[in-house]
Amino acid sequence: MARRDVSLAAMHRIIEKAGAERVSRSATEQLAEILEDVGRQIGVTALELAMHAGRKTVRAEDVKLAAKKLY
Amino acid sequence: MARRDVSLAAMHRIIEKAGAERVSRSATEQLAEILEDVGRQIGVTALELAMHAGRKTVRAEDVKLAAKKLY
Repeated sequence: MARRDVSLAAMHRIIEKAGAERVSRSATEQLAEILEDVGRQIGVTALELAMHAGRKTVRAEDVKLAAKKLY
Repeated sequence: MARRDVSLAAMHRIIEKAGAERVSRSATEQLAEILEDVGRQIGVTALELAMHAGRKTVRAEDVKLAAKKLY
């Protein structure tokens, strides 16, 4: 398995904040996998948008537009 | 601003792995905001699905189905 980019503790907090009394470890692993996948897709699209704008630096506006296009 | 659930370093890694040479701090903040929002939505729906199944524990299957329903 690839090294995690987001922590399982963070995933646990997010689900707990939704009001869950208990959260299984596999649930936190599942959420980490999903959010990293969403993040990767946004990252790839944001980079394309930055390059399209003639930049080598990915900016907030690229991430925002990427998320809007994808989701 | 609410305390972050995901780290900006993690967001930076995700965008860098997409191939970006440089990533602005605001881009990492934007990605954190988006992923936390996605996570919250999945968390709320996953909890509903767990309760619907008569459980108080959120499991991986709830998170998976929540993400499928939402995205």
